[in-house]
Amino acid sequence: MENEFDLTRHRDAYGSAHCSIARALEVVGTRSAMLVLREAFYGTRRFDDFARRVGVTEQVASTRLKALVDERMLTREPYQEPGQRTRFEYRLTDKGRDLYPVLVSLLQWGDAHNPGPDGPPIRLQHRDCGAPVTVEVRCAAGHELRARDVEVLPGPGVRAARKRRATTS
Amino acid sequence: MENEFDLTRHRDAYGSAHCSIARALEVVGTRSAMLVLREAFYGTRRFDDFARRVGVTEQVASTRLKALVDERMLTREPYQEPGQRTRFEYRLTDKGRDLYPVLVSLLQWGDAHNPGPDGPPIRLQHRDCGAPVTVEVRCAAGHELRARDVEVLPGPGVRAARKRRATTS
Repeated sequence: MENEFDLTRHRDAYGSAHCSIARALEVVGTRSAMLVLREAFYGTRRFDDFARRVGVTEQVASTRLKALVDERMLTREPYQEPGQRTRFEYRLTDKGRDLYPVLVSLLQWGDAHNPGPDGPPIRLQHRDCGAPVTVEVRCAAGHELRARDVEVLPGPGVRAARKRRATTS
Repeated sequence: MENEFDLTRHRDAYGSAHCSIARALEVVGTRSAMLVLREAFYGTRRFDDFARRVGVTEQVASTRLKALVDERMLTREPYQEPGQRTRFEYRLTDKGRDLYPVLVSLLQWGDAHNPGPDGPPIRLQHRDCGAPVTVEVRCAAGHELRARDVEVLPGPGVRAARKRRATTS
C-alpha cells in the first residue's frame, strides 16, 4: 500500500486529540484569527485598523483580538495621544511571532495555486540581501524535503500514552 | 513607528481581497479541512478512516472531502474489493501536496507552544538520513530568516490594480 507516511500502522492508537496540528488549530483554526495575525505581522497595531484591514465587523475583530490576547499570541498595551482617551494597541508576542512560517507557507501556496488574476499581490524579500523568501521543509542535515521524504514516528506524547495503557490494562 | 514589515504604508491600497493568504484560507480555512489534509498526508485513503481519524461525523467528512476534490486538492478514485461494491479512495494531488509546509509549520508551532502533557506526540525525521525535520523561512541566498528580516513589497497583483485605478481615475 502506498503511503506518504509510516504512521498509518500506529494511526488509531495515536488519536487526533494528541495531535499538535489539531492543538495549533484550536488557537488559530479560523480564517479571521489567521488574518488578524497576518495584519499583526504587517505592522498593524490598532483596533480600527485591524477591523478595516481584515474586513470584518468590529464585533468579530474584538472577539478575535481578545481570544488571541487570551492565548498570549498578542499583548494589549495602553497608549494615549494628546487630548484623546486611552486606547490599546496589539503586538505580537514571541509565541505569536513563531507562527510566521505558517503564514508565509499559506502565502506561498496561495501564490502558486490560487493567485489573483494579476498574479501574486505581494512579494517577500530578505531585507539585507534582497533575495526572494520562501518556506522550506528541511532536515537538520540540510536536505530540502518533500512529504514523501519524511518519516513520521511516535514521539514522547504517543509513547507516554501507550505506556499508561499498558500499565492500566 | 516600529513595524515588522514595510507594507503598512501601502496597506489600505492593497486590500484583503488580493491577499494570497486570504485566498488560501478560502480553500483550507477550516479546522476540519486542514485535519482531513493531515490524514491524507499520513496515508489515509478511505472515507471511513477519514471520518474516524479526524473525529468528525460522516456528514462533515463527506462535505470536506467533496470540497477538497472540487478544489483539486484530492482526487477521488474508484476501487473494489472482491465481493464488495465499488468504493472510492482519496489521494493528494500536486496542489494538495504543496500544502505540506503549512501542515509541518502548524505541527512545529503546536509542539513548541501547545504540546500535550507528555510532549510532542509525533516526530518527523528524514527517511534517508534520520535527521529531524523542521520548516524554515529562508531567502534564495540561503539565509534563515525571522519576520523582522523580511520586507514586504508590492507584487504584480498590487501593481496591476494600481495601474487600473490610475487609468480609470
